[in-house]
Order: sequence, then C-alpha cells, then structure tokens
Amino acid sequence: MNTGKISLAEAGKQAEYVLGGHGPRNLEVLKEAFREVDGSLGGDAYGKGKVIEDFQDKMAAYLGKESAVFFPSGTMAQQIALRIWCDEKQVKKVAYHPLCHLEIHEEDGLKELHHIEPVLLADKDRLIRLEDVERMTEDVSCLLLELPQREIGGQLPDYGELEAISAYCREKGIRLHLDGARLFEVTPYYGKTAAEICSLFDSVYVSFYKGIGGISGAILAGSPDFTERSKVWKRRHGGDLFSLYPYVVSADYYFDRRIGRMEQYYEDAKELAALYNECHGVSTRPAVPVSNMFHVHIQLGKERLEALLVDIISETGIQLNHYVKDNGDSESSYEVSIGDMYAKVPKERIRDAFRALDRKLKEELG
Amino acid sequence: MNTGKISLAEAGKQAEYVLGGHGPRNLEVLKEAFREVDGSLGGDAYGKGKVIEDFQDKMAAYLGKESAVFFPSGTMAQQIALRIWCDEKQVKKVAYHPLCHLEIHEEDGLKELHHIEPVLLADKDRLIRLEDVERMTEDVSCLLLELPQREIGGQLPDYGELEAISAYCREKGIRLHLDGARLFEVTPYYGKTAAEICSLFDSVYVSFYKGIGGISGAILAGSPDFTERSKVWKRRHGGDLFSLYPYVVSADYYFDRRIGRMEQYYEDAKELAALYNECHGVSTRPAVPVSNMFHVHIQLGKERLEALLVDIISETGIQLNHYVKDNGDSESSYEVSIGDMYAKVPKERIRDAFRALDRKLKEELG
Repeated sequence: MNTGKISLAEAGKQAEYVLGGHGPRNLEVLKEAFREVDGSLGGDAYGKGKVIEDFQDKMAAYLGKESAVFFPSGTMAQQIALRIWCDEKQVKKVAYHPLCHLEIHEEDGLKELHHIEPVLLADKDRLIRLEDVERMTEDVSCLLLELPQREIGGQLPDYGELEAISAYCREKGIRLHLDGARLFEVTPYYGKTAAEICSLFDSVYVSFYKGIGGISGAILAGSPDFTERSKVWKRRHGGDLFSLYPYVVSADYYFDRRIGRMEQYYEDAKELAALYNECHGVSTRPAVPVSNMFHVHIQLGKERLEALLVDIISETGIQLNHYVKDNGDSESSYEVSIGDMYAKVPKERIRDAFRALDRKLKEELG
Repeated sequence: MNTGKISLAEAGKQAEYVLGGHGPRNLEVLKEAFREVDGSLGGDAYGKGKVIEDFQDKMAAYLGKESAVFFPSGTMAQQIALRIWCDEKQVKKVAYHPLCHLEIHEEDGLKELHHIEPVLLADKDRLIRLEDVERMTEDVSCLLLELPQREIGGQLPDYGELEAISAYCREKGIRLHLDGARLFEVTPYYGKTAAEICSLFDSVYVSFYKGIGGISGAILAGSPDFTERSKVWKRRHGGDLFSLYPYVVSADYYFDRRIGRMEQYYEDAKELAALYNECHGVSTRPAVPVSNMFHVHIQLGKERLEALLVDIISETGIQLNHYVKDNGDSESSYEVSIGDMYAKVPKERIRDAFRALDRKLKEELG
C-alpha cells in the first residue's frame, strides 16, 4: 500500500496511459495549431480582420445563428449576454441553476459588475425542469440553461422538455440563453445538430478548450443586433484585445480536427462509466453518460483513494484521473472527460486497471 | 499626380521600406516567438503555472514593485486598478486627462461597469500640471497619469514636476496610477530606470504590443495586497483565461529582444521628426520627441495628402505612414511610432523621400 508520500500528480508522470483528456496542456498545443499556418497571413486588430471574421462566420453558420463574436472567455461572453437581455427588458433579474458557472466560479462578476440578481431554479443536485420555470414567481429577463449541466456530472433534460421550456419562455417573453460550454459534446446523445439545438435559444455561448481542446476562447452567437451590442460590452470588459488570433487560429484548428469525434468520445464515456459502475463502492453520475463526461463517486475518503490510485498507476501503468475531491463522510469524487487519449489505450490494459480498482476497493471497504 | 484611385494601404503593399513600426502585424509575430520554445513546457491554467508566474516576477522586478499580474488587456487592468483604489477610499471618483484612454477608447467601461466618475484635469491639448492637481476641488481616490500622453503626440512632464505631483498626491491621500502603455519608450528621455519612475506611483500598467511589439497583453503591478485584489476583479471581468501563455510567451520574447533598443527608437524618432519639421507646411508634436513617437501635422486636407503620400511611395519606394486623420480646416495629421523598421532604411533613401515630400507640399500649398 502506498503511504501517500507520492502524490497523484507525481505518480501520473510515470503513467503509460491516461484515460481522460486530449493529452498534456503544454505549449505544443499552440505550436501544433500554428505549424502549418502561413505566417504572412494578417492578424486581427480589435475584432476586425479576415482571420477572426471568417471564424465568426463559420461558427455562426454551424450554430445556425445570423451572427457570432469571438470572446477571450465564456465568463465574459455570458455576463454580457445576460446584461443585454436585462437591458432590453429593463429587468435586472435572470434565472439559472444553483450550480451555474456564473454563480460559483466567477467571483460574482454578474452581481458586482452588472448588478444583475439571479433567481436560482431547481435544487443543486438535479436539472431545471419545465415546472421549475412555470412556478417561478419573479419576473426575469432571461433563463440560462447549461447543456449538459456540468457540476452534476453532465446531465441533460429530454429534448422534448427542452423544447417545452423554450416554447414556454417565448410565450412569456423570457429570453433563453444557452451555456453551451459542452454543447458540441451532447449533439450525439440528442441526435440533433448544434443548429437544431441552438434554434431553441435566443443566444448561445460555446467554448473551444473543453471537448475541442483549444487554448482558450469562446463564441457568442445570436441576432446581428445582439452581437453588435455584445461588441460594445466586450470593449468595456477589456476583452476587445488588439489581437485574439492565437485563440482563434487554435480554436479553428482543433474544431476541424475534433468536431467529428464527439460521437466517439460519447461512446467511450459510456464504456468507461460502465467499467466504473462494475467496481465495488463506485457509482457514476449520470449512471449512463449523455456526453463525453461524467462524475465518479467512490465510497472512500480522499487520502485513501489517492493512495489507491497511485498504486494503480504503479501496478498497471494506467492513470485513471488527475485529482480527487473530498465530499466528506468518507466519500470522494472526480470528473472524467473523454478526449483523444482514451482510444489510444489497449482495451485489455483498461480492463486490467479496473480489475485492480475493484480488488483494491474491496480490500479497503471490506 | 495620383488621382486618389489607389489607397495608401494599397500603395503601401508596393513600398520597399516603411518608416514606422516593427514590421507586418501578421501571424509570423507569434510563430517567431514560439519557434525556439520547448513544446513540452506546461501552459498556465487560470493564472497559475511557471510560464505566467516567472514572467510576472520578472516584470515586478523590472518595474520595482513587489508583485505583478498579467492581464489580457490594459483596458481591463486599468479599470480594475482604479476600482481597487476607489473601493479602498470609498470614493468613486478618479482624476485623469480629458484624452485618457479610459475616457475616449473604452466605451465608458469605467462608468458603465464600475460606476466611477472621472474628474477631467487640464485641457485636451496640454499635459496635466501640478497646479491642475492642486486646484482640484473634488475629492478623488486616484489620479491617473499617462506617460507619455499619447493623444497629444506623446508628451511628458519634466521629471521634477512628476516628482512634485507624486509627493502632493501622497500628502493628500490620493493614489497615483501610471498608465505606462509606453513607459519603456520614455526611459531614455528621463534617463531613469522603469523602477525609478514607477517608485513615484502606487500602481503601474505596462503594455507589450506597443514599443515591445508583442501580440497583446499587459502587466499590472503594485503591492501584493493590490495585485491579489486585482486577480479577483480579473476573474469577474472574464480575464482569468484558462491559458494566457500565447501572450505571455510572446511578451517575454519581444521584451528581451527590444527592451535594449528603446534608446535607439528615441534617437531615430528625433531624427525623423527633424526631417518632417524641415518640410513646408509640416510640424511635429512634440517638436522634439521624448519617446519613440510623435504626431505629424500637415497643412493639407486628408484626400490631397493621401494622394501625395501615394505618389511618394511610387516615386521613392518609401512609405511614410499607414493612415491620415482629417482634422478639418485643411489640416491632417498622423501618428508615427518608431520601431525596428526605421534602422533598416538607408539614410539617403529617407532623405530622398523627404525631399520629395517638401517639394510636393510646396507645389500643393503654393
């Protein structure tokens, strides 16, 4: 038994294979994206120029919207989207999930910079349902839905419920905004194109460093009036950089490379979740993934689990994950996101690792 | 005489030499900065990681401050600096020049996002003086000084006056913030190190895509308490990108390459301004540059001047500038920033171009 002296990160450096992600987040990610690019191509300047405009047009078309704007971050793009809808209706309230990115990861930028008050729908551990929206008593300008809801393992409503929520919002004059940080990753489960899903929403944000595996950056899409307003706020936020091309070019490169692999990531995620669920004291959330991601919950405290995972690396050469979160009550969890790495691992090596995980958990849990 | 059918931008493509800047703002700027970088080096993640922390430490040391934070833009960094000082004093007023970047180029982000009211000191066409600060009747949290004052050609106060303003602000409990977008460029004129100049200020912003010629990005420096607060606001603004290394690595590369050339750019700017001032109907602002930049004012309307400059390109192969601004009353102007390009041009070719400029202006102006 590992004594815990070697950290998971340290042990991971010796791993032969890692089951999640696209590979190391190192400077080669940029170097690869630019290797075949002609250096004489002009950069963008304050949002203008072929390099940024072409990609915005490409993403607008892919998302089925009239217009799209490239942003340095989703944090900036989404606050701005909500601000535009609040200004339109002159109501500074929006509705979203209690574990929405804006609520838990942005140092309250929405409140501190825009003075917008959120109305939290649903409980922390479940999705927003149509009935939550129908029962809302506050007048809000916008409802934000995140597809999939990342903080609860990447869950999705049925497509029919999504359509019903969209229809209800249109009827009631509530704008619907899509937090599509992982939108590309759910298209296989829904069996819909991104444009079909986006047609249910007034505004859409997508990210390029999750399933796409770029460096940073986001697209905000909607009507031309909406995106023109968003450019003014982008400048106010300090996001209208002299040049965004390092993110634009890499987003475009990895989009082309990986957009066709989302089905594979989804299938791999289901396979891997099934292996986890066969292990003693382990369950995944959701039980059957609906995208490339899920959460693993294990009935073992963080320190003991980390030591166990270090042992699995040294015994099998397989790194299952990069971190462990302590949930208290001797329960731990972590997130798994499938990317290019999973398909590179021989299947029998994966089965070996899970046999080891199951055996060790039985020893630990008795 | 050119009929104006060929634009200055179009004609510039055929120019053999251009007198300003560091060369084309194309994707090669990034490719060059990353060519010798080891791809296996880890990227930064949300402001953490050796690549960003090392550069922040390097710039803190260079600027003589305890701490520094890398920002995607100066717009973001400076709004945040002023917000921190306003929160500290609980006074939502700051003082700056009427042509301050925050006042004219940021879509009123300071007012719209931070609800900070500016007190405009001095007239549009001159620098802020000690007496302007002394006579200010409003209580302000912070005074922002831009060195050099870009919109009036890049002018500087005497160093003694700067010291006096700094001492006055310290005595009165007014924080002093440096808009150092072109700070590196004024160190030769002052004969001071950046750290000496920065010691007069509580907080400092510097940019990496002006004299340094990087892609985008800024550093905000000050006390550790100040920079820690700035990181919270950076996240709120949406500037805490997953990875900023494309800007960090390029800023570092071009800083090392060009920081030692600021004296040369300054000398070249003085030489070039003298050539302009010898021409009929031309004056520069300032008459003798104090940095790598100055403004050229010519007693000729925009269209006629553009046609004349196109002719100079076709006759001499020299492009003097990239644009012309219409000031009304048959006066035009443009900004010149000296970079690596100037020293590459044979001196006799420069003299030929200015002989042609003088002759053509005499013909035009009679």
